[in-house]
Amino acid sequence: MSARAAIIVTGTEVLTGRVADANGPWVAQRLFALGVDLAHIDVVGDRPEDIEAALAFLAGGGMDLVITTGGLGPTADDLTAEVVGRFQGREPVLDTALEARIAEILRGIADRWPGLDRAALDAGTRKQAVVPRGAEVLEPVGTAPGLVVAPAAGAGPTVVVLPGPPRELRGMWPAAEASAGFRAAVAGATTYREAELRMFGIPESEIAETLRRAEGAGVDLGALEVTTCLRRGEVEVVTRYEPAAQAAYDAFAGVVRERHAGTLFSEDGSSVEQVVARRLTERGWTIATAESCTAGLLAARLTELPGSSAYVAGGVVVYSDAAKTALAGVDPELIAAHGAVSPEVALALAEGALARLGADVGVGITGIAGPGGGTPDKPVGLVCFCVAARDGRRLALREQIPGGRADVRDRSTTVALHLVRRLLAGAGDRAPA
Amino acid sequence: MSARAAIIVTGTEVLTGRVADANGPWVAQRLFALGVDLAHIDVVGDRPEDIEAALAFLAGGGMDLVITTGGLGPTADDLTAEVVGRFQGREPVLDTALEARIAEILRGIADRWPGLDRAALDAGTRKQAVVPRGAEVLEPVGTAPGLVVAPAAGAGPTVVVLPGPPRELRGMWPAAEASAGFRAAVAGATTYREAELRMFGIPESEIAETLRRAEGAGVDLGALEVTTCLRRGEVEVVTRYEPAAQAAYDAFAGVVRERHAGTLFSEDGSSVEQVVARRLTERGWTIATAESCTAGLLAARLTELPGSSAYVAGGVVVYSDAAKTALAGVDPELIAAHGAVSPEVALALAEGALARLGADVGVGITGIAGPGGGTPDKPVGLVCFCVAARDGRRLALREQIPGGRADVRDRSTTVALHLVRRLLAGAGDRAPA
Repeated sequence: MSARAAIIVTGTEVLTGRVADANGPWVAQRLFALGVDLAHIDVVGDRPEDIEAALAFLAGGGMDLVITTGGLGPTADDLTAEVVGRFQGREPVLDTALEARIAEILRGIADRWPGLDRAALDAGTRKQAVVPRGAEVLEPVGTAPGLVVAPAAGAGPTVVVLPGPPRELRGMWPAAEASAGFRAAVAGATTYREAELRMFGIPESEIAETLRRAEGAGVDLGALEVTTCLRRGEVEVVTRYEPAAQAAYDAFAGVVRERHAGTLFSEDGSSVEQVVARRLTERGWTIATAESCTAGLLAARLTELPGSSAYVAGGVVVYSDAAKTALAGVDPELIAAHGAVSPEVALALAEGALARLGADVGVGITGIAGPGGGTPDKPVGLVCFCVAARDGRRLALREQIPGGRADVRDRSTTVALHLVRRLLAGAGDRAPA
Repeated sequence: MSARAAIIVTGTEVLTGRVADANGPWVAQRLFALGVDLAHIDVVGDRPEDIEAALAFLAGGGMDLVITTGGLGPTADDLTAEVVGRFQGREPVLDTALEARIAEILRGIADRWPGLDRAALDAGTRKQAVVPRGAEVLEPVGTAPGLVVAPAAGAGPTVVVLPGPPRELRGMWPAAEASAGFRAAVAGATTYREAELRMFGIPESEIAETLRRAEGAGVDLGALEVTTCLRRGEVEVVTRYEPAAQAAYDAFAGVVRERHAGTLFSEDGSSVEQVVARRLTERGWTIATAESCTAGLLAARLTELPGSSAYVAGGVVVYSDAAKTALAGVDPELIAAHGAVSPEVALALAEGALARLGADVGVGITGIAGPGGGTPDKPVGLVCFCVAARDGRRLALREQIPGGRADVRDRSTTVALHLVRRLLAGAGDRAPA
């Protein structure tokens, strides 16, 4: 049997949606790597009764380990340590050695604010040094210590109490993982493998049929936990399995490979940006962009990866017709004849990017992101793409992209990256001489 | 007594930290605006027993309303509707009229994939049209319908079942909120007002001192729920209060206005993009960008707002030194003398954007986003900014921005937008003739 775990994220600012939670997903990935079976991430506000209710729910659900984040500060609304101690049946005690260590950390900080209230500072330090009797203390990375609190009597989960600031939590994690209480709680963890297949250009429903065919072909799907999701227009199939099920996974991947040969583009977790980056680097090629409706989003996405300066030459954001002419050399008569959103202008943009930036691949994107600007002929969401290679190959696409303004813009960068990927894989027609 | 609510976010991809949850925080803010008291956001994987356990926990905790997100797709691992129906004591029935409507939506999509497996598509459609008997159906925004499912017998929360893709969820929200089941569940909600003040250029800790001064000045802070957070480098102070506390809020806002006159830039929830857009529009001015380390992110952010084509001329992404010269006319000797990341090159970029795009305001950004490329003199995170107006005014800044590559790039767009805002408000020195 595997070890089961849950995470309680505390903080009214997270619960109300003001601040995005960076800790839950991060801890989830650490637990996953340890083979721990994570069942819940529960976000609660700074109310003791809600934190207590979450602890009781998770203990009742048979968790072996509960990780809490947040609520360890020096002020009165930071009450996680107190609530967890009570829940685990351990009375609060002042750890005077810990109090001295926190005071030492604060000495340097306090000197920077001359007008500071010393008595308030000392009270905060003492509060942070009050810990449940018998808990393991994790040394502060900021000023707050973490705690590993096993139940005082009987069964129940061990609770690991970590600070809310992501930098402090991440810094403290190795010590938490190495603590005796943590190791005992996850002793039963299974080792899992995870594999990811990514496809572009099919609807998610196709995967259901692929699963049925795999089953028909005798693949042991019961040994695989297959999850499908649609992200930024791509279908991701993630499979988690125990090492003994490797043969079942290989058989499943074989069925996917055969059925989706034309759309499967990644088998090792690589994103399309990474695939494009690798192929550009292999050839020693550079890429340049000319973007209208996406207005820099494609260039920004291409440069998300460190080291992208090796293959990204640059780009132009040609939101206005005048800019299309000034920066990408698009003939104003071409725009007048076909409209700014047209395959002809997309081609001219791709060729303009290629020429102006002396690149090996040029990308042109022009479309109607909305909400205004649509016509019956050219509705909102219509986007024309063209990718041009220095060797003369051209690859073009005219797509109707669903969704609102942000969706159309974001999805367009995915479509464009897949066009580039296909061109780099050898697709595309030579332009007539 | 107020209405209590909880959110269950389903999806193994969210639980395992592979996909960030965009729905929990968004729904939280909608509930908050309705005066509903949100107690938990629980993230679970695609396992029926874990979803059931979460429903039982929340029902036991006295929730009036539970919102679920995700698990409404056409594949077998999409099981939220089935689990919720069972939990609420309602048997699954095929809604044939709904099946026909989903099939109609899919007709247009299916035509784009000629090799599609029709039987698989039909099976998926039928699955999505199976709903708990007596549930209110919310019309699909994508292909999946939402559901409002009251308990068949006795007390318990009404469960509103919404799709996972953020665009579909957001599109369906108005119908969910207007449904009879939703309105009955939140009938006890208190009415709150919410006001937002945004500042740029102060540390968050300053707000604690402002609160103390407000208290000293006799402001009734007990009637106000003040939350402070730091987002994209800006300090946001959000205050929630009942209508009777309007005078207390006005007094508090007065203290903030006086103490933070130099940094308060928004009192009506406007973002800095919106403030800049308004000021450009008022003057009939256009803006152009020349971006190195942000590589299009500023142009993309400026064009997030519909109608931005009225004031965004365009921009250049000058990731390489050659592109800085080719697209923004930066003298190669200037780069050789001062380095690509220097106030001199930032100025040349701003002036180049201004000239090449015939704009009224030009923005230049050049910096070291990292993780590589830093030196002792010019460490990772150093970014030089310049904003130039056609009337000759210049405003420059050299900033050391903390965080990783994505943080440095994102924060740089915020710093640049605030420089533009200040220039448009009249700041800046004339360049020597």
